Amino acid sequence: MALVMTASATGNVHPIGRASSAPSLAPMMALVAEGMNQVNAVILDRMQSRIPLIPELAGHLIAGGGKRMRPMLTLACADLVGYAGSRHYKLAAAVEFIHTATLLHDDVVDGSGLRRGRKTANIIWGNSASVLVGDFLFSRSFELMVEAESLKVLKILSNASAVIAEGEVNQLTAQRKIDTSEEQYLDIIGAKTAALFAAACRISAVVADRDEAEEQALDVYGRNLGIAFQLIDDAIDYESDGATMGKDAGDDFRDGKVTLPVILAYARGSDEERTFWKAAIAGNRVSDEDLAHATGLLRKTGAIADTLARARHYGQRAIDALGMFDNGKAKAALTEAVEFAIARAY
Amino acid sequence: MALVMTASATGNVHPIGRASSAPSLAPMMALVAEGMNQVNAVILDRMQSRIPLIPELAGHLIAGGGKRMRPMLTLACADLVGYAGSRHYKLAAAVEFIHTATLLHDDVVDGSGLRRGRKTANIIWGNSASVLVGDFLFSRSFELMVEAESLKVLKILSNASAVIAEGEVNQLTAQRKIDTSEEQYLDIIGAKTAALFAAACRISAVVADRDEAEEQALDVYGRNLGIAFQLIDDAIDYESDGATMGKDAGDDFRDGKVTLPVILAYARGSDEERTFWKAAIAGNRVSDEDLAHATGLLRKTGAIADTLARARHYGQRAIDALGMFDNGKAKAALTEAVEFAIARAY
Repeated sequence: MALVMTASATGNVHPIGRASSAPSLAPMMALVAEGMNQVNAVILDRMQSRIPLIPELAGHLIAGGGKRMRPMLTLACADLVGYAGSRHYKLAAAVEFIHTATLLHDDVVDGSGLRRGRKTANIIWGNSASVLVGDFLFSRSFELMVEAESLKVLKILSNASAVIAEGEVNQLTAQRKIDTSEEQYLDIIGAKTAALFAAACRISAVVADRDEAEEQALDVYGRNLGIAFQLIDDAIDYESDGATMGKDAGDDFRDGKVTLPVILAYARGSDEERTFWKAAIAGNRVSDEDLAHATGLLRKTGAIADTLARARHYGQRAIDALGMFDNGKAKAALTEAVEFAIARAY
Repeated sequence: MALVMTASATGNVHPIGRASSAPSLAPMMALVAEGMNQVNAVILDRMQSRIPLIPELAGHLIAGGGKRMRPMLTLACADLVGYAGSRHYKLAAAVEFIHTATLLHDDVVDGSGLRRGRKTANIIWGNSASVLVGDFLFSRSFELMVEAESLKVLKILSNASAVIAEGEVNQLTAQRKIDTSEEQYLDIIGAKTAALFAAACRISAVVADRDEAEEQALDVYGRNLGIAFQLIDDAIDYESDGATMGKDAGDDFRDGKVTLPVILAYARGSDEERTFWKAAIAGNRVSDEDLAHATGLLRKTGAIADTLARARHYGQRAIDALGMFDNGKAKAALTEAVEFAIARAY
């Protein structure tokens, strides 16, 4: 698939618990299809505004082929805990709005030009519009949460939002710093990515009024899935191409983002290689040849393979966090969603 | 004071209801001094983060000499309605965080270099950091609101946030459009400025559990004060200098923002003058001489004087909205706050 690997690096890699067919999101999509119609209706309704630029810009990203992974997780987890109500539709839409607002601001911060295979909103409408429409969607997400009338859910999601922003600032601070540690990196992705996955899953147990142990289990599931998801993304960033990935390959490299593949390759590198990484992350080696050289070093040192191994570790923890729940369609779908997230790299 | 005017333009201008001494914020500051200590403690506590850049950047703006007009209004209105509790401290801090987040994003959107007489955060730390720390403060504001445990307040403030963002996008859309009408302009400032003033005042009646009529009256007070405040700001932008105003004079002119002074001067101008305005707002007349010429036209057509007259109209409506409340220190302080907002231009 998207990621090309050497035989030695892929030798020990296979989808968790699946010997043959490729894992997919199909079971989760089937499980939540009806609910997602409700969620999508809320999303479309609430991105409207009497200011035409808002639905135009927001719609570009929202209609632009995202998987809606987070709202699907909210719905699938609600199914897992046997929730039969409808309060989670607005909450799932709120989660997607938080995510969309974050993407709009991320693309401004990173100066990205391509996402999900399309030009980014900041390229089409400018940075200012992206910042302000992001703010609008973020505000709308809180309006939706308030309508769901659960202070506990509001607490979880407002805290997740603050943690996300903190993680984004932390990432900005770490940018171009080759001495970023694996701990710092995990801290950053735990905040900027995993916190919203965790919250998206946890709130299902809250609206369903399940006990703290189930809330906690869904939080752990979402958090570990989010970390695995981001680790795979960060590996793919070095191994794919724009057409496959839907964004520009090597973006992290050129932006001087110190992701786990780089941390491992730098830690394991010779003096000469470490000199290269220092220069590259500082922004002095940004050509296509430099990117190719970097990718070669990532493979040679096993940095990509071990980033994927780390992702499998967190993925397995996500799956095992579901142990307390009854077996059934929801649990199977949530399990395969983890396998899918990891299999994207193969 | 700050604003230099011709004799003919100032002839009919005097502070509302005050014949002699200049109105000031002193009575309101005295009224809420003790409460503002609580609010400031919340602000300082909640702008903290383990990511040092966050308090550093946020502190630059928060400690940078803002009047804290909005949280003072929340406290003064709480006093007016006889609220004796402490839930409004966190809410007042939340309102200030929303305002601060908006300022950080505004300065990025406008490319501003000077605010409150100091370099803007985007100049010192860059646009990316300003966007992300703004997001953090915005998230923190919702955390604070959730802690106050009033879904009604959350509804008011989340709605105000969405309206503000909508107003900012509307303003962006109207930028460089000389045919912007006074109605559109009032719509924009009603959203980007007055909505938060209205919400800041209204939530006091909510936490104090007063009836809808009092809520409504405080909303109307805040909204009209906000409109008056912004009208004065937009007049001052043409009439002051950086040292007096704390920001760059003529910013609106150079950014092609069609504020009421320009709308009136354009509507009243000769063909030649209208040609000048079209070129200027389109961005083709941005020199200091052009700004001086524009300011001359604003005076000649009475556009500045009539912008101030409009401000007095809204200011008077704000004051009269307080009619249902008992006379006393709080009402006097809120009245003088309106007079102060308007007197800034004289």
